[in-house]
Amino acid sequence: MSQILVFGHQNPDTDAIASSYGWAYLERTAWGRNAECVGLGEPNEETAFVLDYFKVETPRVVESAKAEGVEQVILTDHNEFQQSIKDISDVEIMAVIDHHRVANFETANPLYMRLEPVGSASSIVFRAFKETGTAIPKEVAGLLLSGLISDTLLLKSPTTHASDPAVAKELAEIAGVDLEEYGLAMLKAGTNLASKSAEELIDIDAKTFELNGNNVRVAQVNTVDINDVLMRQAEIEGAIEKSRAANGYSDFILMITDILNSNSEILALGSNMDRVEAAFDFVLENNHAFLEGAVSRKKQVVPQLTESFN
Amino acid sequence: MSQILVFGHQNPDTDAIASSYGWAYLERTAWGRNAECVGLGEPNEETAFVLDYFKVETPRVVESAKAEGVEQVILTDHNEFQQSIKDISDVEIMAVIDHHRVANFETANPLYMRLEPVGSASSIVFRAFKETGTAIPKEVAGLLLSGLISDTLLLKSPTTHASDPAVAKELAEIAGVDLEEYGLAMLKAGTNLASKSAEELIDIDAKTFELNGNNVRVAQVNTVDINDVLMRQAEIEGAIEKSRAANGYSDFILMITDILNSNSEILALGSNMDRVEAAFDFVLENNHAFLEGAVSRKKQVVPQLTESFN
Repeated sequence: MSQILVFGHQNPDTDAIASSYGWAYLERTAWGRNAECVGLGEPNEETAFVLDYFKVETPRVVESAKAEGVEQVILTDHNEFQQSIKDISDVEIMAVIDHHRVANFETANPLYMRLEPVGSASSIVFRAFKETGTAIPKEVAGLLLSGLISDTLLLKSPTTHASDPAVAKELAEIAGVDLEEYGLAMLKAGTNLASKSAEELIDIDAKTFELNGNNVRVAQVNTVDINDVLMRQAEIEGAIEKSRAANGYSDFILMITDILNSNSEILALGSNMDRVEAAFDFVLENNHAFLEGAVSRKKQVVPQLTESFN
Repeated sequence: MSQILVFGHQNPDTDAIASSYGWAYLERTAWGRNAECVGLGEPNEETAFVLDYFKVETPRVVESAKAEGVEQVILTDHNEFQQSIKDISDVEIMAVIDHHRVANFETANPLYMRLEPVGSASSIVFRAFKETGTAIPKEVAGLLLSGLISDTLLLKSPTTHASDPAVAKELAEIAGVDLEEYGLAMLKAGTNLASKSAEELIDIDAKTFELNGNNVRVAQVNTVDINDVLMRQAEIEGAIEKSRAANGYSDFILMITDILNSNSEILALGSNMDRVEAAFDFVLENNHAFLEGAVSRKKQVVPQLTESFN
């Protein structure tokens, strides 16, 4: 039986790892397929906390499907090719489980594609377990719950779907954790930025978007105090300029997100700052500005940039 | 409550009309949304037979969503923008229900997208009725059954999924028809080509594909005798050349499909006949060649062309 790799996006966050881990389990258990969860990068500190908490081995990191001898892949928590495995165009995409917009994605053949505008890819994986009547092991429930908590900042982000709180409640019960207590501990584990170099910090959770011919990098870091991060502004700007030069990003936008008060400071550098300012109807001072109530890159940043760049 | 238009692809076939009719019904009944099924063109003769048989009014034809004052649309049985409503880029795509490859498709926002590699979009709509516990009215069952029969040539096409025969059986029961008897009558209703001009004939069921920078038109007609159609070759080639010139198609490929014996004759004209011949490993003689066992554009023609053109 040929092997299928299941993975989330590059720079994996907790939902990327959790949804691919859960879906690979489902492929093996519900459909008897030879599916393995792998990562397109090392887990971040939040995800490492989750894997350790639920005693799940870190998925091994792969860089090429072909090098693994694999012809078929399943994508979770992403669909845009530039966020996927580097040789994505050379393999068959069997399935996509995602909750993002669709862009820069195409296939030669029909496939299974399940996208819902919900809080996390893990929410969709949870529903597939229910529909197929597959029991959810404790550690899988723990991972899926963590993916949902991570992507919705404990159900506070506007990306939270009406159906997500019930999903979180049921998963927390199976996982045997208190939702609020576990959720806050998990999110805080991801805010330990002091140990990170500026280069690492701007790459913890960063995605590239092609906006009207521009390569725009949008990164996000979580913190319990925005000022802790802004104190390192000069160092961070240096890392951003280096990254722009090396990767050809026209613009680099860093969301510094306060997970306790649900706001973000936007630090932005690049060639299209007029469009960035227009997107959010603010004025950058010393390259940054406050974006009240914004915690979601997907809902409160990328669509606004897309419209402003077009 | 703002209105949502639900439609299949241009040059609608039975599955395009049936799946959009069924999904619009589901939107209204299961979720209380103000959804209307419309067509991106008049029904063909097979679909007209179906609508008449089940006493369903022909969906009105629309050309522009904006002209209807509509901001949100749902696509069934297609996703590629060039097969959709002309102002698809200006409206919000709320959902896609489809069973084709994905290409030339993107959104600014997350959406509901449900693609399965099954025989018809109607099969997926059927499953959504079951999942939401929505009763299927007799005429909706009749249309969904017809969509499945049409796309799979009565479950004989290789696009038929293992789950489709059971879907057909259940829908035939609800619709109160004998599957084989009704299916053959319906398919035969679509083979009445004598009344059609050559211009009409090559446009009954035609889709455009962008293959490596080439606009390739792939049309299909059903018949009970391939020679009946080939007798009109000169006239048909005239219509094809006129259509190529008017629409800028690099190539035009007509599948003349024998629904009784499940084979096709391929008639092809254009700039890339070497690639067409390589795609099917045959030699065109007098612009046509026999393709044994081929009845599915999606599975037996488009992927082969895609690979050969790349």
